[in-house]
Amino acid sequence: MSKGVTPQSKDYSKWYTDVVQKAELADYSPVKGCMVIRPYGYALWENIRNTLDAMFKATGHVNAYFPMLIPESFLKREAEHVEGFAPELAVVTHGGGKLLEEPLVIRPTSETIIWSMYKKWINSYRDLPLLINQWANVVRWEMRTRLFLRTTEFLWQEGHTAHASEKEAREEAYKMIDVYREFAESYMAMPVIVGKKTENEKFAGAVETYSIEAMMGDMRALQSGTSHYLGQNFAKAFDVTFQNENNELEYVYASSWGVSTRLVGALIMSHGDDKGLILPPHLAPYQVVIVPIYRDAAGRSAVMSFVNQISESLAKSAVRYHVDLRDTVSPGFKFNDWEMKGVPLRLEVGPRDVETGNVVLARRDNGEKKSLSKDSFLSTVTALLESIQKEMFQKRKSFREQNTIDIRDYEALKEVIGKGGFARAYWDGSGDDEKQIQEETKASIRCIPFEQDGTEGECFYTGRKTKKRVILAKAY
Amino acid sequence: MSKGVTPQSKDYSKWYTDVVQKAELADYSPVKGCMVIRPYGYALWENIRNTLDAMFKATGHVNAYFPMLIPESFLKREAEHVEGFAPELAVVTHGGGKLLEEPLVIRPTSETIIWSMYKKWINSYRDLPLLINQWANVVRWEMRTRLFLRTTEFLWQEGHTAHASEKEAREEAYKMIDVYREFAESYMAMPVIVGKKTENEKFAGAVETYSIEAMMGDMRALQSGTSHYLGQNFAKAFDVTFQNENNELEYVYASSWGVSTRLVGALIMSHGDDKGLILPPHLAPYQVVIVPIYRDAAGRSAVMSFVNQISESLAKSAVRYHVDLRDTVSPGFKFNDWEMKGVPLRLEVGPRDVETGNVVLARRDNGEKKSLSKDSFLSTVTALLESIQKEMFQKRKSFREQNTIDIRDYEALKEVIGKGGFARAYWDGSGDDEKQIQEETKASIRCIPFEQDGTEGECFYTGRKTKKRVILAKAY
Repeated sequence: MSKGVTPQSKDYSKWYTDVVQKAELADYSPVKGCMVIRPYGYALWENIRNTLDAMFKATGHVNAYFPMLIPESFLKREAEHVEGFAPELAVVTHGGGKLLEEPLVIRPTSETIIWSMYKKWINSYRDLPLLINQWANVVRWEMRTRLFLRTTEFLWQEGHTAHASEKEAREEAYKMIDVYREFAESYMAMPVIVGKKTENEKFAGAVETYSIEAMMGDMRALQSGTSHYLGQNFAKAFDVTFQNENNELEYVYASSWGVSTRLVGALIMSHGDDKGLILPPHLAPYQVVIVPIYRDAAGRSAVMSFVNQISESLAKSAVRYHVDLRDTVSPGFKFNDWEMKGVPLRLEVGPRDVETGNVVLARRDNGEKKSLSKDSFLSTVTALLESIQKEMFQKRKSFREQNTIDIRDYEALKEVIGKGGFARAYWDGSGDDEKQIQEETKASIRCIPFEQDGTEGECFYTGRKTKKRVILAKAY
Repeated sequence: MSKGVTPQSKDYSKWYTDVVQKAELADYSPVKGCMVIRPYGYALWENIRNTLDAMFKATGHVNAYFPMLIPESFLKREAEHVEGFAPELAVVTHGGGKLLEEPLVIRPTSETIIWSMYKKWINSYRDLPLLINQWANVVRWEMRTRLFLRTTEFLWQEGHTAHASEKEAREEAYKMIDVYREFAESYMAMPVIVGKKTENEKFAGAVETYSIEAMMGDMRALQSGTSHYLGQNFAKAFDVTFQNENNELEYVYASSWGVSTRLVGALIMSHGDDKGLILPPHLAPYQVVIVPIYRDAAGRSAVMSFVNQISESLAKSAVRYHVDLRDTVSPGFKFNDWEMKGVPLRLEVGPRDVETGNVVLARRDNGEKKSLSKDSFLSTVTALLESIQKEMFQKRKSFREQNTIDIRDYEALKEVIGKGGFARAYWDGSGDDEKQIQEETKASIRCIPFEQDGTEGECFYTGRKTKKRVILAKAY
């Protein structure tokens, strides 16, 4: 289990799948493109889910659950939507031993089934806004899959909101991409660039798509969350109107937004190293692991009574800890195992430590190891976890800044993309230009960042003057 | 929204669907047999889920997630399992625009996909026990569906455990049916009979099935949770062996256990009345609803400052409360609405109450209404909620006891079943006898209760002497 992983420098992609499997986050299943999320990986997802869920509720949203099976005809009602999703559908043709009159698709996303219900529930501006989120599984038939990053079935949340005005729906879409930014930065310790997608890259059926984009350890970009202003597109497709305050009938305005189990992949590739995972304290299933070390029963008894004092105190401080009591493996094996699993702090407690009242503390993020008194450990552990959280974020932020290069021409883009990194550039090209660049360099425009400095420059591709700067990178 | 529901006495079944819809728990969807769980119903399910999840974790279980799509051939590996589930399968034949080489079924339950993974993970007794639970959606193609009670897609949890001995696996199955009993009684305020299913009624693929059975308001039984000892059936079907402590290769022993969104139906039919839902305080999304009453801005200001004091204090006591600030509906409408939604306590606060420092408190379960001082309300509210919880349980227990009749012959059974209730009887009949009785009376043997008094009597159907007593009833 704790054998080493392929070094990042040798094969980043192999390193990634090694870590996923050796840290027991997920496993391949017998079903093509579908993975099994193992208990340790699921515990991580639970922390992600519970944190986000609280943030959604704090911003006024409620949860609900809509059917997973959607009549095929529903998808077709929104022209761009079906064009985007038709190639990825899984189709149920038989139920209860009989051929169905109309095939049902497994939801690739739930706009259509949800807006068919909103038609029942919305009559007047008094029924608005509707701020509903759903935690669910979805299926998109993917050709090339990769554990957590792109799987045929995945877990996600999808918010679907209905509003009485364009302004309010747009504000909602902005608010939620900012909730994702806040979550990525404060919990995942992952700096992100927030911006708008180009027309080529937006969600099928959206007016505008916003995303958060993060830089992974191999300097590729990972789109980690999206929020869409859908305008009246789905309201028109499902004929959802409301009586506005002036007694006029108007189509409802919409947003939708989602993040998925892909975030687990983002965590792995943001922080991991050749020893395995490095988890940010705010999301780690265990923040502290304690490895008791002893040779005999007398040693065990002394060590365990010391360890119990520590764990009681950790429990009181609401620190998530685990005492590794396995007697079938050696302490050294345990050290490697918990390093692979990315636990922020490891405590080693042996008979000599008990005598001196000390513990040996090892930090996963920077490898520091030191001996300190039990009491001083206990009085500083919460602050230490907070400071690790912040340092991890700063480290990723510096990494991204160091590897984000301003470019002025196409050759410079090719150079940046060739050696890895984000390219920042003035951009005034067309959708076709964008496709051309992607074909030639494998890089795409990740987003048009919300934060623009307002300066004017020449588009690196067309040479036209523009104030718009974009981020280009190879992406997962 | 708050128009009355059909009285129970007129049409219990219509009463049920009226309550589900008018309390906004769920709605019919455009997909045959599938429902939409609305925010209020989902909040109830979240409380059920979170409570059970904590109980599972406290008993050593961890969560994971397995693929929803299962190769059709997997189901066929366990003969009884496929016989039981084949008629209910939804089948995916196309993915990504192509006909699949092998059809995939949507999980009706996950034994097969999970045991195919356990084969990968289990080698030695050191890998055991595996105590894994999954929260998921499942699909069973049902002919007659009913909101919450029987829907084509439903949400549930399914525990799947692997053990090194029969004894341990049987103990796990017993332990988990007891966790369900504890949950039903202490959280749902719903007394249950715990027992073993007959051979006719057991899970397809199990050696033994245990269930909890509750009496609904119309005196029918509702099977509310099941736990199965699966023996080595699935280990043999998926060739899952382990090296035991004697270095011998042995098939692994298994249990599985589950409850579903059906529990929401059980809550409704256990406690509801002609005014709507009555929710037990331990699971109610809101335990207290506050309706401020005022005529003008001055009144509003005084009332709201008083209400804010109350809500701050409730928040400190971790009471789940809601202040109904809607200005589009009258206080009377709000009273009916929250009665329909089953909130245990309603607080009315008007300008005169503020002057006297009083509140008007109405209990949903027994309709009591009284005026008391704010401080006395706040100091007793937690205790009051606990006592409501207990009284609700006692009321249902008395109801069940009053309507459980000992019968000695078949005529007496017909009489009990005809007027409604549980029949308790000595039983020594065959599976065919059981089928015959069910055809003639619509009643089935709900379970062979674990609690038996050891007395001997004559089987009501065969006349043979036996010490085994069973519970018979019409069931949902």
